[in-house]
Amino acid sequence: MAYYALDTTTVIDYVKNRPALKGFFPEGARLKASEVGDGNLNLVFFVENADNPANSLVVKQALPYLRVVGESWPLTRERVRYETQALRKHNEVAPGLAPEVYDYEEEMSTLVMEHLRSHEIMRKPLVARKRFPKFADHISTFLANTLFFTSDLYLTGIEKKRLEATFVNEHLRKLQEDFVYTNPYMDSEENNWNPLVDDAVQEVRSNPELKMGIAEAKRAYTTHAEALIHADLHTGSIMLNEEDTRVIDPEFAFFGPMGYDVGAVIQNLLLNYLSHYGHTPDKAERERYQAYLLDMIRDIWNGFAAKFEALWVENNNGEAVPNAYWDFPGGQEAFAEYRRRYILRLLRDTALHGGTKFLRRMMGIVSVWDISSIEDPEKRAVAERAAIKIGSRWVLERDTFETIDDLLNIVLEETEGITV
Amino acid sequence: MAYYALDTTTVIDYVKNRPALKGFFPEGARLKASEVGDGNLNLVFFVENADNPANSLVVKQALPYLRVVGESWPLTRERVRYETQALRKHNEVAPGLAPEVYDYEEEMSTLVMEHLRSHEIMRKPLVARKRFPKFADHISTFLANTLFFTSDLYLTGIEKKRLEATFVNEHLRKLQEDFVYTNPYMDSEENNWNPLVDDAVQEVRSNPELKMGIAEAKRAYTTHAEALIHADLHTGSIMLNEEDTRVIDPEFAFFGPMGYDVGAVIQNLLLNYLSHYGHTPDKAERERYQAYLLDMIRDIWNGFAAKFEALWVENNNGEAVPNAYWDFPGGQEAFAEYRRRYILRLLRDTALHGGTKFLRRMMGIVSVWDISSIEDPEKRAVAERAAIKIGSRWVLERDTFETIDDLLNIVLEETEGITV
Repeated sequence: MAYYALDTTTVIDYVKNRPALKGFFPEGARLKASEVGDGNLNLVFFVENADNPANSLVVKQALPYLRVVGESWPLTRERVRYETQALRKHNEVAPGLAPEVYDYEEEMSTLVMEHLRSHEIMRKPLVARKRFPKFADHISTFLANTLFFTSDLYLTGIEKKRLEATFVNEHLRKLQEDFVYTNPYMDSEENNWNPLVDDAVQEVRSNPELKMGIAEAKRAYTTHAEALIHADLHTGSIMLNEEDTRVIDPEFAFFGPMGYDVGAVIQNLLLNYLSHYGHTPDKAERERYQAYLLDMIRDIWNGFAAKFEALWVENNNGEAVPNAYWDFPGGQEAFAEYRRRYILRLLRDTALHGGTKFLRRMMGIVSVWDISSIEDPEKRAVAERAAIKIGSRWVLERDTFETIDDLLNIVLEETEGITV
Repeated sequence: MAYYALDTTTVIDYVKNRPALKGFFPEGARLKASEVGDGNLNLVFFVENADNPANSLVVKQALPYLRVVGESWPLTRERVRYETQALRKHNEVAPGLAPEVYDYEEEMSTLVMEHLRSHEIMRKPLVARKRFPKFADHISTFLANTLFFTSDLYLTGIEKKRLEATFVNEHLRKLQEDFVYTNPYMDSEENNWNPLVDDAVQEVRSNPELKMGIAEAKRAYTTHAEALIHADLHTGSIMLNEEDTRVIDPEFAFFGPMGYDVGAVIQNLLLNYLSHYGHTPDKAERERYQAYLLDMIRDIWNGFAAKFEALWVENNNGEAVPNAYWDFPGGQEAFAEYRRRYILRLLRDTALHGGTKFLRRMMGIVSVWDISSIEDPEKRAVAERAAIKIGSRWVLERDTFETIDDLLNIVLEETEGITV
């Protein structure tokens, strides 16, 4: 069957006729469908049993062009394949932390998956100062498991290369390469920034050390195939509630630097931290929530580092540094020291990529809702100016960092004395 | 037609019937074939016109197993495909520096190419102290062109990822990963070393900093997809004469760290340098040739660095750091400084990978003929001990290196006062 774009009528027939979905809905169930456009690249439908709304699923279908700019920007439908492959791998190595995949059809570019009816996208509740007591534990497990189990530390060289070969993903990678690492820092018509921080934006664009640092970040992004990374792990790619966390939308997934994913999570939480200068006028309330976010970030990094190392010690099955390689007097200590340095490098990579992402959100094509929803441009500028300073310093000072507090102290320094 | 292993009779019929070779030999020419086994993985035949020996070609066919260990070690025949792809790319970006490809057949795993009748493999003439006045110029061009034109500095992101996807090469990469970066430094039954340097071998195996350095080299080798590297560029992969140089046998090619290839060339020339303590008893003669080799290495590195940078300035067509990215006051200086740091990193990577390769040749499964042909074990040990010291120091001191002389000074220091 040739590709056609589904609609709320045809999607019902579609799910009824897919062998993999047989039995999901009771025989003769009355199905209803709704379209819930989530972004620019895809159609997304909820299909549910009208007599039992909990009996429902999601159908995601790629459109053959980037919706936001019309048909002028052809993008392949392969991205649903990449998303499906990544979700399956995530379910395998981090069970319960990604939506379950029910079906996938190459020709129609459709992915059918679990409907997370009791979860919400993380971004808005963070602006509403909601707390998620299990999130740090969940996301640090997700990061540790997905990164460790797809790396050379766990997979054999042949296994890793074969898995990597299924994630070429050249089109979506190009989007990130251009819009995270290059275009925001030079003249490019799609760039968008608050005129009130124009001086800070121009300073970034003409700072030689910073430009070289960002170039190094791009070099790492384009050449360091360390593990299967999600590559778009912001708080809009996280659905959760107080008990449960799921990472969604891994269509940008490819083999890249581990620090990119960790940096994305932490940097998005810090943009939310800064957004409260606009969203939360009550100082005591704001500071309480900001302190909560800093604790959460500390727990995420420290949880990630501890879990990643524990996985490594328990499952050193890859060919990177086999146990026999450390079989000499003092070898166990050397292996422990190697792990320490490896994870310290990940912290610095987290600062490098996270720092760059701070900048791109302030001066490139895509802002984040946390910040862009601050209506008063003066108040928005307070958050934006701090974000630019923090991002710049993370990139410039990355090689001096030893612990997560070195990153967070820069946040405290650059926000000290802010009055709104 | 199903695969079958060619012999000196069937290979003649084979070349006669290949459409791509039509006209290579005159109609009715009397052809004769000889087998010239060069290694462990392949059959290699010369097929020539008996009435005009200059009218000849080479047929290389992969065997479905690693010949040296019999059929116990299955390896795919894909390697001839990788070799063919790499040779074609080398001919494209470094014309005249690789043998020309005439034909390739997937099913038979055959590669038919130019017969370099007036060239010799470089290793033995170096032991005979032969001079090759154009070699440094040729090989530095080969390195600069093959590495630059297959990197993100020249290719777009999409072009590079698609090219990279054709070089998965997981089996041959595993051989290098195991036998260069891991097995020589731990207990592994295939390791082989001169008992007279056992103390130095054990010292390497139990030196924590060195082991961590080699682990970092392996991490770079397995994850840093910078450019299409030859990945086996020793002096046995170079055929030349006084006028002409060709790089052969790129079957290990994949996207890896640029410094690996540069390090392989330089390190092999230095093993030859050390081998003259065994091969050239006349001190004056030895020192003259050793000085010649050091000059050659200086010319190779400096030529490579200058050519690579010139290519970059002239052809900054990739998406790594577009010219517009440097369009700010002082931007040209910043770009020049970025190039300087980039190439300095390549020097240090050259030391890291080259240093590791010094060690593996002394204590792993595969020695080099320059050294192994020194019959007196005492004399051999002189060269081997120096090689182990130099390799160790290159790995350990890599981050202090600023120029090629920093690497060569270690050679001078570790060979000072050697008497044979």
